[in-house]
Amino acid sequence: MTIKLTDVAKLAGVSPTTVSRVINNYGYLSQKTIDKVNQAMEELNYQPNSLARSLQGKGTKLIGLIFPSVANPFYGELIETMENYLFEKGYKVILCSSADNKEKERDYLRMLTANKVDGIIAGAHNLGIAEYEKVGLPIVAFDRFLSDSIPIVSSDNYAGGKLATEMLYQSGARKIAILTGTNQSDSPTNSRLQGYLEAIQHYELEALVFDCLPDMSKNLKALTIQKLLKNEEADGIFCTDDLTAVLVMNEAKKIGLAVPEQLKVIGYDGTRFIQDYFPQLSTIRQPIADCAMLLVNLLIQRIETKEELLEENYTLPIKYVKGDST
Amino acid sequence: MTIKLTDVAKLAGVSPTTVSRVINNYGYLSQKTIDKVNQAMEELNYQPNSLARSLQGKGTKLIGLIFPSVANPFYGELIETMENYLFEKGYKVILCSSADNKEKERDYLRMLTANKVDGIIAGAHNLGIAEYEKVGLPIVAFDRFLSDSIPIVSSDNYAGGKLATEMLYQSGARKIAILTGTNQSDSPTNSRLQGYLEAIQHYELEALVFDCLPDMSKNLKALTIQKLLKNEEADGIFCTDDLTAVLVMNEAKKIGLAVPEQLKVIGYDGTRFIQDYFPQLSTIRQPIADCAMLLVNLLIQRIETKEELLEENYTLPIKYVKGDST
Repeated sequence: MTIKLTDVAKLAGVSPTTVSRVINNYGYLSQKTIDKVNQAMEELNYQPNSLARSLQGKGTKLIGLIFPSVANPFYGELIETMENYLFEKGYKVILCSSADNKEKERDYLRMLTANKVDGIIAGAHNLGIAEYEKVGLPIVAFDRFLSDSIPIVSSDNYAGGKLATEMLYQSGARKIAILTGTNQSDSPTNSRLQGYLEAIQHYELEALVFDCLPDMSKNLKALTIQKLLKNEEADGIFCTDDLTAVLVMNEAKKIGLAVPEQLKVIGYDGTRFIQDYFPQLSTIRQPIADCAMLLVNLLIQRIETKEELLEENYTLPIKYVKGDST
Repeated sequence: MTIKLTDVAKLAGVSPTTVSRVINNYGYLSQKTIDKVNQAMEELNYQPNSLARSLQGKGTKLIGLIFPSVANPFYGELIETMENYLFEKGYKVILCSSADNKEKERDYLRMLTANKVDGIIAGAHNLGIAEYEKVGLPIVAFDRFLSDSIPIVSSDNYAGGKLATEMLYQSGARKIAILTGTNQSDSPTNSRLQGYLEAIQHYELEALVFDCLPDMSKNLKALTIQKLLKNEEADGIFCTDDLTAVLVMNEAKKIGLAVPEQLKVIGYDGTRFIQDYFPQLSTIRQPIADCAMLLVNLLIQRIETKEELLEENYTLPIKYVKGDST
C-alpha cells in the first residue's frame, strides 16, 4: 500500500496542511512541529521529493512498463508504440524486462512503487494477483489477468484461434495440430487454444495439442516440432506466435516437407517485423497500434481521474493475413 | 549545464550548508533566509526533490537509454542486456526511442536532464556534437561519435567489413557489392565500408557501393536490392546489417537466384534472434553481451568516480559465423 500524506499527518499528530508546509517551507512553523513531521516521515520511510511532487498535485510523469522481453519483436513493437504515445502525452517510460523471472518482476514492482511512477502497464505474467493488488498504483494489463480491479486489453484470442484453425482447414489440412505458447489457464492467451478446440470439434477432427513454451530452449522447441512433424504426421499447424511458426517452417525445410503443399502453417501476432522479413508466413494479426493506444489512454484516464469504473475487458478484433504458408 | 547547489547558494547570497538546511529542514533558519533560498531555487528552476537527492549524495538511480528503436532485434537485444546489468547494479532504465527523429531526440535530452537521470547511454545519431556536450551528464556512446569527451564502445567495424568481404571472396564471389546502412562519415559504422573497400582493393576487384538506409521504406529497399541483383549481376553481397541481408535473400528467391550457388550473402550483427530464426544466414557477429557490459561499467565508473579519464574508444572483436548463405 502506498503511504499517503494523511498517514504522515496522523503519525505526527498534526494536520495534512502542516505536513505540506513543512515539506515546502511555507508559513510559520515551530521547530517542534518540523521535528515531529520529519520524524514521522522518517518512520514511514517517506521520500520528501515524491511527497513534494504529489503535494503539488504533479505526478512524476514516469510510467513503468513490465513486459517479459524487448528482444522479442512482438513486445518490442508494442513497447515502442506505447513509448511513442506516452512521449506525445508528456510521459517517460521506465522499462522493466521481467525475463520470465518472478524475483525480478517482484523487485521491479517494489522499485516502481518506491520510485513513485504514476502508473504501470503490465504484460508480464509471473506473479500472482495478490502482489499486483497491493501495489496501490494505477495499472492496466496487456493480455494478462492480474486482478479483478485491473482492466485487461487484448486482441480477440478466441476468435483468432478459431479463425486460424478454419483457415488451415479451408486450405486443405485435415490433421491440424496446435503449438501453444502458454499453459496458464488464467491467461487470455489460453483462449487461442479454446478457439482451436472449438473449430476442431466443429469439423469433427482430432485435437493435437503440443506445448512450445517461452521458457523452452530453442533446441527443445525444435525437438517438439520434429516429433510433431514425424510422429503425428500433422498436415496443418497453428502456432500461437509467429516465431514458433518460423521454427516450424525451418524444421519442415530440414526434413524436406514442402510448405504449403505437404504442410500448412499459420502463426499469430503479425508484427510489422514479420510482415517485412517473413512475408511468406500466414498469420493472425493483432492490432498492435490499437492495443498500444488503448493501454496508454486507459492508464492516463486512471491516473488523471482516479476512476476505477473502467470496463474490465477490452477485446480488439484480429485479422487473417495470408502469406504463402497456407 | 546542470545547475548545482552552489549556484543556488550564490544567487541567494548564503552558504551551501544553508541551502542544504532549507531543503532538509535542519537546524535554525530565519524566515528571511528560507524565502531567499526558495526564491533562488525558483529562479534557477531547481526541483527540490532532485536537489534533496543530490545533497544526500544519492543519485536518482535512473539511466536514460537513447536508441533509434527497440522494435529492431539488434537494439532490442542490446537494450535488454544493458537493462539486465543495470538492474543487477540497482539502476532502472528510462527508455528513449528516438525513432530517427531529431526533435524527439532533443526533447528526450532535455527531459532526461530535467529529470536528473544519473547518466545516459546513447546509440542514436540524429543530433550534432554540440547538443550532447551541453547536457552536462555522464554519457557513453554505442557505435557513435558524439563528442570528444564521450567514450565510444563499438565492435571492430573495420575488421568486420574486411572479414565479410574476404569470406565472400573465399567462397567464390568475384563481383562483390556492399549494401550500407549508413552514409554518415562520422559514424564508426562507416568503418564497415572502409573494411570492404580495403579488401576489394586488395583483391583488385571493382567496388559496388549501394545505400540501404534505415529511413528507406521496405519497398524502397527492395527496389535497390532488385536493381543490384538484376543490373549489376553481383554474385556476392555484404549487407552491413542482418535484416537487410534477409531482404536480399527474400528478393533473390523471388527472381529465382539460388543462394549460395549463384549469390553469396553475408550480414552483420549476429543477434541471438537471427541465430535462432535465420540460422541459414552467414554473418559477422558483434559481441552484444560484451558491448552491453562495457557500456554499463564505463557509465557507472563515470557516475561514481566522476573520472573523465576514460579511453576514448573501446573496440571489441567480431566473429564470422558461417550459415548456408556463403
